[in-house]
Amino acid sequence: MINIAVLGYGTIGSGVVEVLNTNGESIAKRAGDQINIKYVLDRKEFPGDPVMEKLVKDFNIILEDPEVKLVVEVMGGIEPAYTFVKSALLNGKSAITSNKELVAKHGAELLKIAKEKNLNFLFEASVGGGIPIIRPLNQSLTADEIVEITGILNGTTNYILTKMSEDGLDFDTALKNAQSMGYAERNPAADVEGQDSCRKIAILSSLAYGMQVDYEDIYTEGITHITDIDIKYAKAMDARIKLFASSIRENDEKVYAMVAPMMIKADHPLYSVNDVFNGIFVRGNVIGDVMFYGSGAGKLPTASAVVADIVDAAKHLEKNIWTIWSSKKLELTDIKQVAHQFFIRVKGDVASLKDKVWELFGEVEVIKADGVDGEMAFLTSVLTEEEINEKISKLPNVLNMIRVRF
Amino acid sequence: MINIAVLGYGTIGSGVVEVLNTNGESIAKRAGDQINIKYVLDRKEFPGDPVMEKLVKDFNIILEDPEVKLVVEVMGGIEPAYTFVKSALLNGKSAITSNKELVAKHGAELLKIAKEKNLNFLFEASVGGGIPIIRPLNQSLTADEIVEITGILNGTTNYILTKMSEDGLDFDTALKNAQSMGYAERNPAADVEGQDSCRKIAILSSLAYGMQVDYEDIYTEGITHITDIDIKYAKAMDARIKLFASSIRENDEKVYAMVAPMMIKADHPLYSVNDVFNGIFVRGNVIGDVMFYGSGAGKLPTASAVVADIVDAAKHLEKNIWTIWSSKKLELTDIKQVAHQFFIRVKGDVASLKDKVWELFGEVEVIKADGVDGEMAFLTSVLTEEEINEKISKLPNVLNMIRVRF
Repeated sequence: MINIAVLGYGTIGSGVVEVLNTNGESIAKRAGDQINIKYVLDRKEFPGDPVMEKLVKDFNIILEDPEVKLVVEVMGGIEPAYTFVKSALLNGKSAITSNKELVAKHGAELLKIAKEKNLNFLFEASVGGGIPIIRPLNQSLTADEIVEITGILNGTTNYILTKMSEDGLDFDTALKNAQSMGYAERNPAADVEGQDSCRKIAILSSLAYGMQVDYEDIYTEGITHITDIDIKYAKAMDARIKLFASSIRENDEKVYAMVAPMMIKADHPLYSVNDVFNGIFVRGNVIGDVMFYGSGAGKLPTASAVVADIVDAAKHLEKNIWTIWSSKKLELTDIKQVAHQFFIRVKGDVASLKDKVWELFGEVEVIKADGVDGEMAFLTSVLTEEEINEKISKLPNVLNMIRVRF
Repeated sequence: MINIAVLGYGTIGSGVVEVLNTNGESIAKRAGDQINIKYVLDRKEFPGDPVMEKLVKDFNIILEDPEVKLVVEVMGGIEPAYTFVKSALLNGKSAITSNKELVAKHGAELLKIAKEKNLNFLFEASVGGGIPIIRPLNQSLTADEIVEITGILNGTTNYILTKMSEDGLDFDTALKNAQSMGYAERNPAADVEGQDSCRKIAILSSLAYGMQVDYEDIYTEGITHITDIDIKYAKAMDARIKLFASSIRENDEKVYAMVAPMMIKADHPLYSVNDVFNGIFVRGNVIGDVMFYGSGAGKLPTASAVVADIVDAAKHLEKNIWTIWSSKKLELTDIKQVAHQFFIRVKGDVASLKDKVWELFGEVEVIKADGVDGEMAFLTSVLTEEEINEKISKLPNVLNMIRVRF
């Protein structure tokens, strides 16, 4: 029997308990031993819930119990999660987390401690909910040099963009819809402004390149500036707008990383990733293109990933599972040098704008969308962020600018 | 330094050598040690190829060299592959294979020997080429009871069906096209008659349910009966025809498995898996739906999966990686009891056929396709194979019958 402690009895914590109860028998077979939840740490009371028997409020009880071999941190936030996980590792207990902030900020350090102690620090659930992506990156794509990771990593924004596209909703209505469905929080900033995706792509990039990618260094743009008019243009071009989190190694070996809405067409493997689903596209120099798809959030899919980590840690109680993520910082390409094609909308009538636009961008074609007047829309050639910003500054009344990967 | 031997210097074998040369440095970092190919076994000569230095023709040289820790079997076929792999394991060497016939037939036995000897028998490349699916099933989806695996597991047939759909080709022309592109062999029977997919779904099912699924027990239907007329009807219904290899656990806990062309619509996660790509959809009772997508064949993608196994085996030289696949046979549901909706085409004119069809199938709607006359096409309700066969036997001149998952 392997005793574990679950830190936090919120949505994911209660999901972990539920999954261990539901599939306990087959999980024991795969782990090679019965998994027993000895403690659940939470400040709240849960009257009538059988978890009450295991509930403790003091983390030291867990820390000082030598029977506890694994702690499962599903509280979220940096503190006290960081202190708890670090002290657990230092006290000879493996640690599992679903906490993307913790992993993005302290992943390299916690992995180093785990390795020194011959323990494990696992975090499959921190990116892509239930989708297996951390373990495949660490253990399956080991023959490859990764040249691109692009993910739709946030279910809330993907749901909003899907609803805007399918039902013709504007952003605010689609957001309210997402909130009423329980897909968006009352304060949706971390999702809609791209910070959630940013932390997740920082984690994936650090694993892919084996060096620390700081999320603060990643250019991050959310979806709050995407309007129903943009969606109409996307439709006119048979395209969709998705919030992409990318890190790409270019020919010169330098990596750039960014989170931004992207227009894509049906030939892109992530085109069909709709609603709250996530998809992660990986390109290797040998394997070519692979894609992983599934539920990026939700109580049970996320708990499934946490429990898969519990099984893996239980099978490797005295063997560190090698993960290459050095604390050495990866210097990213300056965003100014990153190049894309752009979709641009300028306010005014085409006749009076055309000369100026052609002077700046060449003889671009004017794009029309159903029922949209009083503006000129077009696609640029491939330009760096520096070039586009310089050109844009010379145009009056730019309504929107969206990167394009056609 | 870890010495390995590669058995077979054909497409995949030379790919493995190429990948180890190209990405040697990062592979060594991930394996924790340099991987050195000490021997390559092949009966042929390769004048001018640096591999000549390592070439041997007698497997016993490899078997008796205690320095060789891993053998990599990429010859294909049952013999001598089975004898080589088994004797390698019995002589204390871990074994890796890309050979689906070998794994489908002898997987349970070879895994048992590996476990008893505290070695590993790994076979990621045997299904889905480069797509990580074996390792995720064994190590990532461990919190779940798998309730469905459905894959597009054969690139050749998927390419043929895609070309028929996109370019309006008939089967023979699309097959010749696939042969000229090098995607189909001169004798394409194993692909187009579904046997390749059958062996692969047998392997995935054995891993998902932990018991032996014999490929001989799996109902297998190829794509040779799919015509350009069927594709026209599929288009009229906004559907596509894909060769599905499925195993599904039904409510009564029994599993059925089948390989057959299937009509699906855009809401199915495998709808966008086109050309030579493969996709594998997995449904778990906790994780919900996940999908894995990538190149299902080809020299480098397949070699990438083989080398990932080499890395994993190198990291676990003295630790068996637990795989649950007992030799106990899983009794599959009798195919007669499996139920689907069916698309049916009957020769004759609608006016004279309608009464008979309605008598057998109820008041079904007649489906029309562009430029197709002289036949009546319709969708049935959900019927078992036994029921459909009985009804079909009462209809004269049935032109085709394709299962439907709308």
